[in-house]
Amino acid sequence: MVRAEIITIGDEILYGQILDTNTQWISLELDKIGIKTIRKSSVGDQESEILSILEEAQHRADIVFITGGLGPTKDDLTKKVLAKFFDCDMAYQPQALEDVRIFFEKRGRELSDLNRDQALLPTKAQYIQNKQGTAPGMWFEEKETVWVSMAGVPFEMKAMMEEQVLPRVAQHFKTPTIVHKIVKVVGIGESYLSDMIQDWELSLPQHIKLAYLPSLGIVKLRLTGFGDSVNQLNHDIQQEIDRVLPLIKPFVFGYEQDELSQVIGKLLIQKDASIALAESCTGGYLSHLFTEIAGSSAYFKGAVISYANEVKEEALGVSTDILEKEGAVSEACIIAMANGARKKLNSTLSLATSGIAGPDGGTEDKPVGTVWIALSHSEGVITHKLQLAGTRKQIIHMTALNCLNLVRKFLLNELTQ
Amino acid sequence: MVRAEIITIGDEILYGQILDTNTQWISLELDKIGIKTIRKSSVGDQESEILSILEEAQHRADIVFITGGLGPTKDDLTKKVLAKFFDCDMAYQPQALEDVRIFFEKRGRELSDLNRDQALLPTKAQYIQNKQGTAPGMWFEEKETVWVSMAGVPFEMKAMMEEQVLPRVAQHFKTPTIVHKIVKVVGIGESYLSDMIQDWELSLPQHIKLAYLPSLGIVKLRLTGFGDSVNQLNHDIQQEIDRVLPLIKPFVFGYEQDELSQVIGKLLIQKDASIALAESCTGGYLSHLFTEIAGSSAYFKGAVISYANEVKEEALGVSTDILEKEGAVSEACIIAMANGARKKLNSTLSLATSGIAGPDGGTEDKPVGTVWIALSHSEGVITHKLQLAGTRKQIIHMTALNCLNLVRKFLLNELTQ
Repeated sequence: MVRAEIITIGDEILYGQILDTNTQWISLELDKIGIKTIRKSSVGDQESEILSILEEAQHRADIVFITGGLGPTKDDLTKKVLAKFFDCDMAYQPQALEDVRIFFEKRGRELSDLNRDQALLPTKAQYIQNKQGTAPGMWFEEKETVWVSMAGVPFEMKAMMEEQVLPRVAQHFKTPTIVHKIVKVVGIGESYLSDMIQDWELSLPQHIKLAYLPSLGIVKLRLTGFGDSVNQLNHDIQQEIDRVLPLIKPFVFGYEQDELSQVIGKLLIQKDASIALAESCTGGYLSHLFTEIAGSSAYFKGAVISYANEVKEEALGVSTDILEKEGAVSEACIIAMANGARKKLNSTLSLATSGIAGPDGGTEDKPVGTVWIALSHSEGVITHKLQLAGTRKQIIHMTALNCLNLVRKFLLNELTQ
Repeated sequence: MVRAEIITIGDEILYGQILDTNTQWISLELDKIGIKTIRKSSVGDQESEILSILEEAQHRADIVFITGGLGPTKDDLTKKVLAKFFDCDMAYQPQALEDVRIFFEKRGRELSDLNRDQALLPTKAQYIQNKQGTAPGMWFEEKETVWVSMAGVPFEMKAMMEEQVLPRVAQHFKTPTIVHKIVKVVGIGESYLSDMIQDWELSLPQHIKLAYLPSLGIVKLRLTGFGDSVNQLNHDIQQEIDRVLPLIKPFVFGYEQDELSQVIGKLLIQKDASIALAESCTGGYLSHLFTEIAGSSAYFKGAVISYANEVKEEALGVSTDILEKEGAVSEACIIAMANGARKKLNSTLSLATSGIAGPDGGTEDKPVGTVWIALSHSEGVITHKLQLAGTRKQIIHMTALNCLNLVRKFLLNELTQ
């Protein structure tokens, strides 16, 4: 197994001024070609810190990726420190000098000394062209390790990696094969899920590992296989998925990159159905989950966000009687809202939400987190009362997930109600 | 200067399955109380890797923050490895046990053995309560270093840090007095802003530092003062803000924790006005920005999410003629949508959006990113055509920000149109 380490250099990332997205991207790309990231580190623009992380990485990794610190200004030290670390001089690299000259010429800008010095590289460096910017990349084979230094600007780094570095890395190392598969579940917590599949988990073969990746309301199960053949690994992992599926079937909504609202979109298209919403407490968030999916206009007709009771009456046809006697957070109201949306927006199905998202507005009878949801279809209305906990944002999010899961189960004919 | 190191534990971050946002947040918070982050590291769920990073960090840092690896499942090793590193046993922590019991009771869920084991902590740990989840935090003072271990789920970690860890860290290290003030601007890019205030920035006194914290569409200017007296620092920083404000006034929408939609909410309340929306391309996202603010029901009446043209006609009264001749992405349509929403939802003001969020649906005349927005008020309609770039999500976000900024300027009488 080839072991990679990723180092980010720069005060702006260390102090949190900008969010580092480079290391995630690099590790995902390495994973695809079977190279295992064993450590990610971030250090500041200080010679001693950079030297010490290089020294450490050398003893741990077969290949080290370094991003950042290649700009033309004084606070960018990477090149100087690399020359020191590899005990060599700096010199103008002819091709780099030519490339930086052309870069400025093409843009009709004058080449300053500062720009020209971009082509000043440690003499042990092999030049990697940066087509998107002026800071050249570098490849070193020193101290029994491969070192790749690249610009920190994400699109410059990505272009260098895709066009030059990754193919060269794949060629240089004879890498083993890794295959990942992800199973996504909703409507069950990580610990319950873990109890449910414990025996299966313990019986996994040695070359397949399981990881739980939880986020609010959703858990991803990731199976990772290590071996020689992609086909064999795909087969082995699929076999394990086929074994675990019967245990967790009702909770599984998708695989790999699937999003819940996207899965529902596909089901709606399959059934030639459309959907509309009446949102009160979710206030547009549920619509957003539908419409952030490209192509959702094929099945999403629209929504009425009925925050004011007046809008519930006028736009959805909820009766004054219901609102006065039962209140907006009631089963009667949610049924009227769902039916109203389906009728007024002329859709096959509709979802409705009404509840108390907090932090204020709770009563003894209806504390914060009391939420009614409903699904209206041609033969009736399904309602659920939820009692949720957490912040306003969490209650909104969990209400929306419960709605999505309700319509998912309905479309799969998995509801008994 | 107190030196901090941040360690993230978990294969899912190391392999890039999820993006680490915790370390950025932590380093920003530490910066606020004058603690310098000197290293960020990420390691996988492997005992040897975790032990070796702990060993290294001990020699570098005064305080070490560890996130992740505290879940109830088998792949989470942090607690076990910490017990080994500090050479102590594991035992049920009574308060932690009580808290996890209450957590499940409140949610009406049964407490499994796996959940109970969440309260099993290294005996040298001081318990830090996790009010948002079941994985307790831990505080150690061992090996001449302070160690803080927290859950990796961002909202759990943030709540623990804000309520318990940060105050305790400030007390423990008797950190110097630091005062921060944030000025928030919208509608101008970081580099233009920087050009605009360059002279002011260069003239700042030595004890006040400026940082630019940009995110999509919004830039936070953070002024940090170092000294002995909070009052003096507050005065000095305010003086600098008063000097810069005249230069950037039209772009400043708030200070500190202000959100754009919240600022608008306050202005609407002041003017005893209400707002309603007609959203097409933003698909509920703009409503969500209004309604995620607690108390928004005081001024937010509701919205029509008119994805289908049929809904534009039926619910908003846009004429078939406009839709057929001009199309949904046109000035005529956006005017009809905005007026329709204001009338049908009976509000003082209304906003409308219609555009092509992509990735498909663009034409030569109306490429992806072509967006019309409108504000309808008692005396007319203000429209803007935007040409945005980026992903679907970015186009949706930038459209919503443009709408919010439009209504903000209108409410402040800053529009000439």
